[in-house]
Amino acid sequence: MTEKIAVLGAGSWGSMLADILVENGHEVRVWSKSKEQVDELNTKHTNSHYIKDFTFPTKMKAYADMSEALDGVDDILFIVPSQATRSVARQANEVLNQMNIKPYIIHGSKGIEKGSYDRMSQVLQEEIDEKNRKSISVISGPSQAEDVARRDITLVTAASDDMPSAEHFQKLFMNDYFRVYTNNDIIGVEIGGALKNIIALGAGALVGLGYGDNAKAALMTRGIAEISRLGVSFGADPLTFSGLSGLGDVIVTATSSDSRNWRAGYQLGQGKKLDDVVKDMGMVIEGIATNQAAYELSKQRGVEMPITSAIHAVINDEETVSDAISNLMAREGRSEQV
Amino acid sequence: MTEKIAVLGAGSWGSMLADILVENGHEVRVWSKSKEQVDELNTKHTNSHYIKDFTFPTKMKAYADMSEALDGVDDILFIVPSQATRSVARQANEVLNQMNIKPYIIHGSKGIEKGSYDRMSQVLQEEIDEKNRKSISVISGPSQAEDVARRDITLVTAASDDMPSAEHFQKLFMNDYFRVYTNNDIIGVEIGGALKNIIALGAGALVGLGYGDNAKAALMTRGIAEISRLGVSFGADPLTFSGLSGLGDVIVTATSSDSRNWRAGYQLGQGKKLDDVVKDMGMVIEGIATNQAAYELSKQRGVEMPITSAIHAVINDEETVSDAISNLMAREGRSEQV
Repeated sequence: MTEKIAVLGAGSWGSMLADILVENGHEVRVWSKSKEQVDELNTKHTNSHYIKDFTFPTKMKAYADMSEALDGVDDILFIVPSQATRSVARQANEVLNQMNIKPYIIHGSKGIEKGSYDRMSQVLQEEIDEKNRKSISVISGPSQAEDVARRDITLVTAASDDMPSAEHFQKLFMNDYFRVYTNNDIIGVEIGGALKNIIALGAGALVGLGYGDNAKAALMTRGIAEISRLGVSFGADPLTFSGLSGLGDVIVTATSSDSRNWRAGYQLGQGKKLDDVVKDMGMVIEGIATNQAAYELSKQRGVEMPITSAIHAVINDEETVSDAISNLMAREGRSEQV
Repeated sequence: MTEKIAVLGAGSWGSMLADILVENGHEVRVWSKSKEQVDELNTKHTNSHYIKDFTFPTKMKAYADMSEALDGVDDILFIVPSQATRSVARQANEVLNQMNIKPYIIHGSKGIEKGSYDRMSQVLQEEIDEKNRKSISVISGPSQAEDVARRDITLVTAASDDMPSAEHFQKLFMNDYFRVYTNNDIIGVEIGGALKNIIALGAGALVGLGYGDNAKAALMTRGIAEISRLGVSFGADPLTFSGLSGLGDVIVTATSSDSRNWRAGYQLGQGKKLDDVVKDMGMVIEGIATNQAAYELSKQRGVEMPITSAIHAVINDEETVSDAISNLMAREGRSEQV
């Protein structure tokens, strides 16, 4: 089957997912609010701020006008920074109000909205009227755009409450270098995808401080345990957190120096101030906003999240990184099964 | 409390656990069948074949005679290569038959016995008469000896059917750089600890072949999924595999070039023959025997283990590494939740 698909957002991962869809034979329209980026994609077929040394297929068209991008589409992929998802969804809904289509919706944004603490599928559900869409899905997993650019192997999860929708996207995206699993636990997949950036920050900080492999593995494992506890309090299946969108994404984000969140953490570990780290990075560091959201949620819901709390204290200058680590280690011995 | 503890086996991890116990104030006797190693430990206080540039406390005594090592002990830690555990346990039982003590038993060997497919706690249970021991526990988790030597941070699990025994060992081992969690799922902890070496082999091979971070994270995640399926068929709790002894140990073993199994896999990925890899390594590569055991168990029990089977085919020269990977990727799309 060939589908007409709009990709809203043209960052590293958005443009690379668009590239996969083009290669799988679909008609793909990439939307970006940046006129310059759209021009670059249409004329040079590159996206140089986000992906180095990669040429997109000429068949892939970019648009700065959302009505053109959404015209007659079967599917919409939302893939903008999580704090921008609501406004882009609202804009899309206005466009869809003028059209007579009911596309499948999927998103690939990893974060939780500040203030509302909404997951991205909740934001999309709230902003896009039911008459304008089919079910909402999410695509998530260990997926650095650079690896896909090289046609290395990548495995991800497509999740939805509505399994036929997840299977629909599995078929759209899957090929011989990009393998897609389905999952019906959208809550767990979104929470894992969002909160993994907190663990990446922490892992980067440990390496920045000079800690070794045991410490990093421990942080990642206990990090997943506390994310899972929070997820379960929202109705997620704890096993989702040991899947591709949980553990898988934690591994890639927390062990690769290509990850922005890891690099931000590394610089914090080396003693750099948060403001300077953010300035240097020049891209959104999802883990910082997500840490704030997770910290507040853990308090609100009475879920113990010692690593999230420690990182929150460090980011907010309430504790030094080394004090935070000593305090974590000084806690009383406990069972893994709580 | 101060206890008298025998550590049977003086490899990297055994001698380092002994070192922790000495530092925690216990009286520790290390046993090794190698007279030279015992002499080196007692005179130079080094264990140079296993741990470079590390001096053990003079209080730590080594013995080649097992009766001396076991004399009046409160606890025995078995930590020899898994294929040697049965014979060492049998020898210990004969010595214990001459004594009037009933020590706690714990082991730290990661493997499954060839032929019998027994977990190490089953081997110990079969070989050590009940009159000669208390309950059996296991200590497992992401723990490279080199990190402990540097007093870096390490988190592990002590597991037993009998929770008071697990808590006993938690107290014995825990300190400010070595944090111990308890777990009552000894089956899951032992299976995770043993089978992670298969994933380490596979991850090393992927890197040896030039694959990137997405592929490695995917292998580790789907590897844990299939190990968990096998474990559940034996009555393990699937969540144990996302704990320290499962995921945690997979992370450290499969992302660190310090891991023997990873290095063996890396060399296989680079096209070296298995026999040469084994010869070069000069230490036991647990993952190779464990792969055979897991492969046979998966057939016997009808549990799908595609990664284990692919590695088995590569090790046995039935498939090239790149064919094995293409075949894995060509399988039909499926759900993460099976």
